[in-house]
Amino acid sequence: MAKLRAVLIGATGLAGQQFIAGLKNHPFIELAGLAASPRSAGKTYAEALRTANGMTAWFISEPLSPSVAGMKVISGDAVQAKDFDLAFSAVEADVARELEPRLARDIPVISAASAFRYDDDVPLLIPPINAAHAPLIREQQKRRGWKGFIAPMPNCTTTGLAITLAPLIERFGVKAVLMTSLQAISGAGRSPGVIGMDILDNVIPYIPKEEGKVEVETKKILGALRPDGSALSPHDVRVSCTCTRVAVLEGHTESVFVSLGKKASVEEVVQAMREWKGVEVSRDLPSAPPHWIHVHDDPFRPQPRLDRDVYGGMNTSVGRVREDGVLENGFKYVLVSHNTKMGAACGAILAAEMLRAQGLLG
Amino acid sequence: MAKLRAVLIGATGLAGQQFIAGLKNHPFIELAGLAASPRSAGKTYAEALRTANGMTAWFISEPLSPSVAGMKVISGDAVQAKDFDLAFSAVEADVARELEPRLARDIPVISAASAFRYDDDVPLLIPPINAAHAPLIREQQKRRGWKGFIAPMPNCTTTGLAITLAPLIERFGVKAVLMTSLQAISGAGRSPGVIGMDILDNVIPYIPKEEGKVEVETKKILGALRPDGSALSPHDVRVSCTCTRVAVLEGHTESVFVSLGKKASVEEVVQAMREWKGVEVSRDLPSAPPHWIHVHDDPFRPQPRLDRDVYGGMNTSVGRVREDGVLENGFKYVLVSHNTKMGAACGAILAAEMLRAQGLLG
Amino acid sequence: MAKLRAVLIGATGLAGQQFIAGLKNHPFIELAGLAASPRSAGKTYAEALRTANGMTAWFISEPLSPSVAGMKVISGDAVQAKDFDLAFSAVEADVARELEPRLARDIPVISAASAFRYDDDVPLLIPPINAAHAPLIREQQKRRGWKGFIAPMPNCTTTGLAITLAPLIERFGVKAVLMTSLQAISGAGRSPGVIGMDILDNVIPYIPKEEGKVEVETKKILGALRPDGSALSPHDVRVSCTCTRVAVLEGHTESVFVSLGKKASVEEVVQAMREWKGVEVSRDLPSAPPHWIHVHDDPFRPQPRLDRDVYGGMNTSVGRVREDGVLENGFKYVLVSHNTKMGAACGAILAAEMLRAQGLLG
Amino acid sequence: MAKLRAVLIGATGLAGQQFIAGLKNHPFIELAGLAASPRSAGKTYAEALRTANGMTAWFISEPLSPSVAGMKVISGDAVQAKDFDLAFSAVEADVARELEPRLARDIPVISAASAFRYDDDVPLLIPPINAAHAPLIREQQKRRGWKGFIAPMPNCTTTGLAITLAPLIERFGVKAVLMTSLQAISGAGRSPGVIGMDILDNVIPYIPKEEGKVEVETKKILGALRPDGSALSPHDVRVSCTCTRVAVLEGHTESVFVSLGKKASVEEVVQAMREWKGVEVSRDLPSAPPHWIHVHDDPFRPQPRLDRDVYGGMNTSVGRVREDGVLENGFKYVLVSHNTKMGAACGAILAAEMLRAQGLLG
Repeated sequence: MAKLRAVLIGATGLAGQQFIAGLKNHPFIELAGLAASPRSAGKTYAEALRTANGMTAWFISEPLSPSVAGMKVISGDAVQAKDFDLAFSAVEADVARELEPRLARDIPVISAASAFRYDDDVPLLIPPINAAHAPLIREQQKRRGWKGFIAPMPNCTTTGLAITLAPLIERFGVKAVLMTSLQAISGAGRSPGVIGMDILDNVIPYIPKEEGKVEVETKKILGALRPDGSALSPHDVRVSCTCTRVAVLEGHTESVFVSLGKKASVEEVVQAMREWKGVEVSRDLPSAPPHWIHVHDDPFRPQPRLDRDVYGGMNTSVGRVREDGVLENGFKYVLVSHNTKMGAACGAILAAEMLRAQGLLG
Repeated sequence: MAKLRAVLIGATGLAGQQFIAGLKNHPFIELAGLAASPRSAGKTYAEALRTANGMTAWFISEPLSPSVAGMKVISGDAVQAKDFDLAFSAVEADVARELEPRLARDIPVISAASAFRYDDDVPLLIPPINAAHAPLIREQQKRRGWKGFIAPMPNCTTTGLAITLAPLIERFGVKAVLMTSLQAISGAGRSPGVIGMDILDNVIPYIPKEEGKVEVETKKILGALRPDGSALSPHDVRVSCTCTRVAVLEGHTESVFVSLGKKASVEEVVQAMREWKGVEVSRDLPSAPPHWIHVHDDPFRPQPRLDRDVYGGMNTSVGRVREDGVLENGFKYVLVSHNTKMGAACGAILAAEMLRAQGLLG
Repeated sequence: MAKLRAVLIGATGLAGQQFIAGLKNHPFIELAGLAASPRSAGKTYAEALRTANGMTAWFISEPLSPSVAGMKVISGDAVQAKDFDLAFSAVEADVARELEPRLARDIPVISAASAFRYDDDVPLLIPPINAAHAPLIREQQKRRGWKGFIAPMPNCTTTGLAITLAPLIERFGVKAVLMTSLQAISGAGRSPGVIGMDILDNVIPYIPKEEGKVEVETKKILGALRPDGSALSPHDVRVSCTCTRVAVLEGHTESVFVSLGKKASVEEVVQAMREWKGVEVSRDLPSAPPHWIHVHDDPFRPQPRLDRDVYGGMNTSVGRVREDGVLENGFKYVLVSHNTKMGAACGAILAAEMLRAQGLLG
Repeated sequence: MAKLRAVLIGATGLAGQQFIAGLKNHPFIELAGLAASPRSAGKTYAEALRTANGMTAWFISEPLSPSVAGMKVISGDAVQAKDFDLAFSAVEADVARELEPRLARDIPVISAASAFRYDDDVPLLIPPINAAHAPLIREQQKRRGWKGFIAPMPNCTTTGLAITLAPLIERFGVKAVLMTSLQAISGAGRSPGVIGMDILDNVIPYIPKEEGKVEVETKKILGALRPDGSALSPHDVRVSCTCTRVAVLEGHTESVFVSLGKKASVEEVVQAMREWKGVEVSRDLPSAPPHWIHVHDDPFRPQPRLDRDVYGGMNTSVGRVREDGVLENGFKYVLVSHNTKMGAACGAILAAEMLRAQGLLG
């Protein structure tokens, strides 16, 4: 079987690099094109990463393979959809707003950018939760007259939260969620991202726009596709959160208080998470972990440094599941989710895998 | 006026060192004795701090003064109450359980240890909040037949939370609180405290016993002395929290969700905190800050590194006051409180100052 | 006596903020003007610090005083020399190259920028070492036809090294120095400075241009003014160094190997540093510390976090003085110097104080 | 072919855990026994790792496999040499002094402990450098009347230094080395290891005994076995170093100044390192990396976080190779070496592999 030929736009940034790492040795997707800003066009990828002072700006632990290093970078504006089967997008929101629709006329665009997340005809796919939202893509194509489509990933802070809520909703219902995040600095990228002087020996209690994203996206992800396939009805869970930044490189930690729809015991809550298999189509995808959620008994877990990389960063680790005495049917727990793997590039690759399994891609 | 002669027990540990720094140049308390374990007895304080490998284990930024460095350390067991007017205690809970009652037979003991916090006849004093609890000391003396008494400080995580709740209770009432703490590592001390490998690039989601302390102590601090002065009626606020440890040296950050007793606006909540002056007797104490609470407009504040040391670490910094859509009359905010100054040694000195102003000390 | 009226150019950056903190309550210098980029002109200083997302970008622990917060910022280009007695400069090198000479035509400019450090008629003043270089200013004025002058500060990494070498040169002579620095991130400023992702759990082994600066400046600082006052003869010490960046906020640590001009014992080397008083004119300046060098006996010192702020950051802390078996008359030691206080803004203020004592300023 | 049955003594500590990770799926060594202190004896390994407060003290990122988790731990004192083909030792030096000789009477003991490193009849094996030292084991067996032997690994700070010196000695000779280390905290283990409060925002300039170890071991490792095989003649390179601790989890960084035996260019020095293949017997061992040394052109490398894990942590990364103007034929460079992989457990496994290839093991 011929592999799907993918172009990656925004290839030189930190998010783009994570796509490159995630697509290495992929069974059916081939990284066939790298696009970046006009300034990088015509250079090899390795040259495009080199800064004025001689640094090769490749920042992830998996070394850059020689084959990718030698690929010629094209300008995002010059990408020809006809040369590719799909596009992955790791550009900033403002660039995405221009570039993604142009490509989506012809090919699917799976994106880490937020530009189109809140459009009515755009699903926010987390395969084990809402594979059933994928057909909204047909509506999007119809409305916009596109052959392709745009499928953006949720905000990285939303992903782990939504995954842990999904089994609770299925078993008990969830009425409300209050969450405080302790987020890693990698999510802010490197231009300039979080400055060292701001985060060493410190906590930053505010991440602009983050809380609104989590509150809106969680409801959308956990919602339902209307019977006519024309739009999503958001879930009626109420969500309130405070998002902070801590001195952690990778892996978002979230302290969650949740009000269930009915009485339950700690054991039942733990069991619901442990037994949750997610939607069937999501289970055997190449990037899927053996379990979507791992619940620790050790009260000192999860910890971002120890748990973020389990199963390639595709797992959500949970611990400290306890009753909460304040909320109705209240429980509290802590989760760790890898913000740049499951929460970004690898989550997008997982979504592409699912869309293909659903016959919506390639 | 002669100064009160204080003995410090547990003088060599991190908490003890903070008492020494806090009592430097105190207007009416003189550090007249230093006590530690029998192993240190007979040495000068500087010698007692020296470890086998040549390190002088003085860990706070204010340099050790030569006069304290040269004081002879006595064994905690050998402290004679008659030589002193009061004792400050910075020992561990198990040592406190033996040592503090022996001294309290004759002199007041103001303590950072948790050993007696939960006894019925023991107040948990935060001067601006509950100066009115101080007379419970009379009941304690009567019941136990002591001339002195034990006045323990609350847990450091409770202090900042209780201070920010106090003005809300006064103006609006508070029904419930959900709090997630991001705590500094200094609170764990140095024996061994938090290990570097555990906290660098990491979050530890569990601090044994901490959450229970915060939940119980908050209700006690905010409660009311019964008319007959025999005990405290805890406040009926419901408190639920998750306490975590982050890579911060000093200063606890807390993300608070609170349900008020009646409707309010963000402006009213901010105003309540800004205008709060605390109980009158607390206002002009030598260690009191000009304001108990500082509310930031800058959404990136408070930050522990920038805000912990304001007004000598006696201030509580608040920011990000917003409405919360989940709780009834819900609001959310972030606070920073200095865990080893207002939250421990300096809070104890402040309490001593208040007790003297109330005629209960010396 | 009227205070000298100083204008600060580059007032909004991190270096500028340190000048503001350092000049607070100065006995004879008044901060009379604040200048920054045209974008800030006309705003109050507090407004100029406010970023688009609502942050007040004041990053040092001393709070911004209301009087400075309310000062109107002028554009660097619009500063009128006639309105001031001297200028302090905290601008980047390229801006300094334009702005400093314009002001120096009329008034003295004491600068933290590197632009003019290597000019023949420009001294690099560290008061206790080379007060005798100050008259080179007369040559500078003569050559350039200026009424004022430019006196730049050395690179922050050079300062601590030069201070510890000075007493060794006086007593024993110094032939060669090999130094490895472990530098704090504050030196890189905030635009963007060192990125959090680059420094957390990491060391960066390269700081562009830093090593060359240290090698050249050390020789210049320790050199001698020619008898005719026309230029400096650099010291013939050979200097080789490797400069690295570590996860420290403030305070450069340097590991030094030094070859003395004659035999000495560890005791003699320690004594030379401890007894060193520096040039007489430098000793009683308002910003001068009681000792220029503190030598620790504790082998675990100096440490940047514990030692950087001693005596207001104006002291250089030394420890681990030992013989080295490789170099001729070899010794090795570790030093800590505050890079943004003695090594930048406060060092510049100290230089201004000395120049005034020498009759060269105001 | 039957696998060699190995017992690991000191299995529960951090070093022991690294042996367990390193031996996972080993082609010819089977982890057949786990030994620890009497307190752990009789428990499963997972139980032995559980602390009083419920923590499972497994601290490395590779998850603990169920098969190891279920193994019964035996007391170090109860280990029967006859049950095993070899022993790996990860105990502290004082325990090693008792336990290792008892086992070495019958079986080879490959050890990370320092207890026997400095004995005349004990080699310090780094396979690519000094495979030729291995026959000293015969002398050891003869002298001590043992059927087994003790082969300790060098100190982790020595390993990277010696590896980078080896090709320089071969091509140019090396007369002297001055080195400053910036060491990771993992080397100190967890009992208590480096305390968080000591290392956050800090550098510790002293690691007890470390410098002496590096100076003596480097000469021994690079020395030559005397023709009669009875002892090693240390290399006459002079070594002087300063060892510091920085806020890095894993990976020692070292700033090296070296005086070569003859003139060379930077290109030749780089080439010598890049082309160095090490002793033939070391090249194809299962744990050997494709190259022993990687020399970066990017001046911002090596960095511990980015380079420590290359080739499973068995590679030494070098960068910033430059001439040094102070030493005779002087050069300087920076290296990063993984202190707990190549520098400890995995280095010991590599040595075992080599000894087997040499017919000295099993």
